[in-house]
Amino acid sequence: MIVFADIEAAAARLDGIAVRTPLIRSHALDEAAGGTVLVKPECLQVTGSFKIRGAYNFLSQLTPDEAARGVVAFSSGNHAQGVAKAGALLGVHTAIVMPEDAPRAKLENTRQLGGEVITYDRYTGDREAIARDIAAERGAVVVPSYDHEYIIAGQGTVGLEIAQQCAELDLQPDQVLVCCGGGGLIAGSATALKDAFPKVHVHTVEPEDFDDTKRSLESGRRERVAGDARSICDALQAHTPGKMTFEINRRLLGHGLTVSDAEVREAMRFAFRHLKLVVEPGGAVALAAVLAGRIETAHRASVVVISGGNVDRELYSAIQREGSD
Amino acid sequence: MIVFADIEAAAARLDGIAVRTPLIRSHALDEAAGGTVLVKPECLQVTGSFKIRGAYNFLSQLTPDEAARGVVAFSSGNHAQGVAKAGALLGVHTAIVMPEDAPRAKLENTRQLGGEVITYDRYTGDREAIARDIAAERGAVVVPSYDHEYIIAGQGTVGLEIAQQCAELDLQPDQVLVCCGGGGLIAGSATALKDAFPKVHVHTVEPEDFDDTKRSLESGRRERVAGDARSICDALQAHTPGKMTFEINRRLLGHGLTVSDAEVREAMRFAFRHLKLVVEPGGAVALAAVLAGRIETAHRASVVVISGGNVDRELYSAIQREGSD
Repeated sequence: MIVFADIEAAAARLDGIAVRTPLIRSHALDEAAGGTVLVKPECLQVTGSFKIRGAYNFLSQLTPDEAARGVVAFSSGNHAQGVAKAGALLGVHTAIVMPEDAPRAKLENTRQLGGEVITYDRYTGDREAIARDIAAERGAVVVPSYDHEYIIAGQGTVGLEIAQQCAELDLQPDQVLVCCGGGGLIAGSATALKDAFPKVHVHTVEPEDFDDTKRSLESGRRERVAGDARSICDALQAHTPGKMTFEINRRLLGHGLTVSDAEVREAMRFAFRHLKLVVEPGGAVALAAVLAGRIETAHRASVVVISGGNVDRELYSAIQREGSD
Repeated sequence: MIVFADIEAAAARLDGIAVRTPLIRSHALDEAAGGTVLVKPECLQVTGSFKIRGAYNFLSQLTPDEAARGVVAFSSGNHAQGVAKAGALLGVHTAIVMPEDAPRAKLENTRQLGGEVITYDRYTGDREAIARDIAAERGAVVVPSYDHEYIIAGQGTVGLEIAQQCAELDLQPDQVLVCCGGGGLIAGSATALKDAFPKVHVHTVEPEDFDDTKRSLESGRRERVAGDARSICDALQAHTPGKMTFEINRRLLGHGLTVSDAEVREAMRFAFRHLKLVVEPGGAVALAAVLAGRIETAHRASVVVISGGNVDRELYSAIQREGSD
């Protein structure tokens, strides 16, 4: 279990490494929501997503012996880049198991950051087994995507910054919407946010087909999505909540929200037109939930986390072209 | 002539109206430049460009009588939106003369913000005459695009914020690169920057065909570009420097830089891929100058102003598609 002090410690480790992304206000978004909406754009973060926060917090706590043997991770792309970048900064070799159909930009960036990329088939391969084999062979430490206290504390610095920035604006947030794959970002962020604002409601937002955390929050136990679940959000395709993350999330979170692929695409167009931010599908779900009216925003102060912006230009252009405005 | 106190006064008027845009650092950009490069993303500003700053500073100083008669402006689109938004905030009617081939998003946004849009042919019409006629007919005040002390002081708050933000980062900027149409943004910004950092070099960046300020800085008098000049940068098509802006700029600026349309397109792709910012052509010239090596950036601290992000999705998609990575 992690506590507020763990997140403060992670923030100290990340000082000068991760960007303190701004909290942005948009009149167009306020108008669409009928209330105040602040955007935390982690697409502006180093490697284009929040993942550097957890990855660096983890890798910086390896023993010299562990660091010398290198690490291995599995990821659809954002955790991959975060781990590769953290490894480059700390001089640790990184091997990353990635789906062969991951966005090309994510594959290329991971390699450019110095990561050794090993690809597998997302629908037939077992990435955890591949990573375990590499770890066993090399004596490498596995860097989990979410279910580890160092990862959760690192990602929680997003929530810590939101709390600090709301305080600087003299604003009491009513609700914070955060995308959810395995649940690490929201578990850490909720820990920080609830410490600063005990009354704030923190909600997961997931793709419709990957609503495992929403259903788990309802049933009280870790539910699993169908094996044939599909979504445009390549970054949010966890089939079941993490064990450690769910223990935190069941205590701290409000109910879960979901959005459709069409609503995600619409949110990406809104971000292009009004926010001037490049947002990837998985990064757009919280914004989509506000724009699609999945939660009451009128006369409330809401914070929306945009978790990343690593999207291939072909998909991005296609989504822009299909817009009506 | 404007002084530092005018810019501070403008900043006070803009408090709570304009966004204090962040100063963003990107590892990818630092690597490309071989030095420190900070980005001031005015694409994240209200109406998607810095123009709200000058427009609001101007409109907020109208007499009640002037405000009641309304204002008229001519603009390719960003000043148009800034004036329309300022008018909406202050309850002042705004009429805007815009080229009929202005980016559709700029035309639509100006109307949505409440501006009365009057279109003309960019290559045959005389927008100043059209605006003068409207002003004469209605008794409306003309809101200049750049050549007025209220406008210059308002835009100068960009430079004031850069100076403050560099101080917060404990960083002494060696050079600041700013796009230049009529020269209002850079005149005001240089006034603020030179006050805070007397040794800083401030450079204009213009499209190749619209290098009037570069040549004027060299000759010491206001030069004019050819009538058939063309550029992808719809926001930077001034044919000659402003009278007042050039008086300021000749005293404060270093030499001028230029970039090609191809370099602008490349910079827009870099901003998509690495900065996750939507940047319009005219907003990308300063970034393009760094990426194209138009100025030494190795082992220096440079600041690049990205002035706006109002670009139609068709053009944006076409530019992304032509990329090689």
